[in-house]
Amino acid sequence: MSKGEQTRDLALREALAQSSNVGLQGITIGGLADSLGMSKSGLFAHFRSKEQLQLDVLDFAGRMFIRRVFTPALEVPSGEPRLRFIVEHWLGWAGFADYALPGGCVFVTAAREFDDEPDGPVRDLLVTQQQEWLDTLAQVVRGGVREGHFRDDTDADQTAYDILALVLGYHFAVRLLRDEQADARTRHAFERLLDDLRTPT
Amino acid sequence: MSKGEQTRDLALREALAQSSNVGLQGITIGGLADSLGMSKSGLFAHFRSKEQLQLDVLDFAGRMFIRRVFTPALEVPSGEPRLRFIVEHWLGWAGFADYALPGGCVFVTAAREFDDEPDGPVRDLLVTQQQEWLDTLAQVVRGGVREGHFRDDTDADQTAYDILALVLGYHFAVRLLRDEQADARTRHAFERLLDDLRTPT
Repeated sequence: MSKGEQTRDLALREALAQSSNVGLQGITIGGLADSLGMSKSGLFAHFRSKEQLQLDVLDFAGRMFIRRVFTPALEVPSGEPRLRFIVEHWLGWAGFADYALPGGCVFVTAAREFDDEPDGPVRDLLVTQQQEWLDTLAQVVRGGVREGHFRDDTDADQTAYDILALVLGYHFAVRLLRDEQADARTRHAFERLLDDLRTPT
Repeated sequence: MSKGEQTRDLALREALAQSSNVGLQGITIGGLADSLGMSKSGLFAHFRSKEQLQLDVLDFAGRMFIRRVFTPALEVPSGEPRLRFIVEHWLGWAGFADYALPGGCVFVTAAREFDDEPDGPVRDLLVTQQQEWLDTLAQVVRGGVREGHFRDDTDADQTAYDILALVLGYHFAVRLLRDEQADARTRHAFERLLDDLRTPT
């Protein structure tokens, strides 16, 4: 990476970490410059506006999510094993504090911020990312039907929606309720879902 | 109600409506006074501090939730009919804009705001309300076991958790994704859950 690219990458990582706590609307180019000990004008050259920074952070988060959760799943056999791998890593992404996301899933945070906003570039990108992810998940479920793991009449879009709800519940239970059983409960619910996909009607 | 009680009730309704959009941290006694055309000092006499206002709004929201979702359910036969009634009215509370909650469920909003906050009176009240509600739901599920509607080995706490996840998914799909199928998908997932509760192991 060039020096400019390194600066941009560093700034995006810091902005993502801050966003997971204070939201996309809570980050500012000035605040970011202070945290990183960089000049504000230097960062403005990279991001130009707060809205562009928000868009870049969401795009960065989306690529990080795909790299952590989806790309490695392509090494796993398609169908149920791949779906299990994805859910396992998605829960890791959503619930646990790590260097990248001290405040939990940035998409959950952004959803809360933008759900009642009128259409706009940031909201639109967020919704597009979520819909693309639901479509991707549904494709993975369809892979399970092709492999004979799941019933032929599986509603893949419904299943993707069901899994999203599980992950949102997990995030709520881990981060708000600090429920030590959140992990076990979410896995139990996921196993029940898989059992239903296997049961012949 | 006395004039003072009326003022307080009016202020809490307005504060709740504002909170559902801007969050509990976004409301101020001064802003509330402006919206209502009241004097700031008059409202300070009712709420004393921003934190007390937040606590009073949460408490008011909790009582409104119980009055709309739980109390009328006690008129419905216990077990599955009561659980259905509750989920139906809970979805109404969570998803649809009405005069009281233009920004959707205030508890979802507050969860996002306080999930990473250290312990404090507002966070503690929010968590207590959620845990009490999960316990109440679990009791309703146990009623279904007693009535013979659900399997004897039903895990009532797990079921309460599963339903909470469904409602969180519904809120996300309605408010962020504006998904017209959110209602059908959530109902489908709930019917699947009920089917599982009925199936003998």
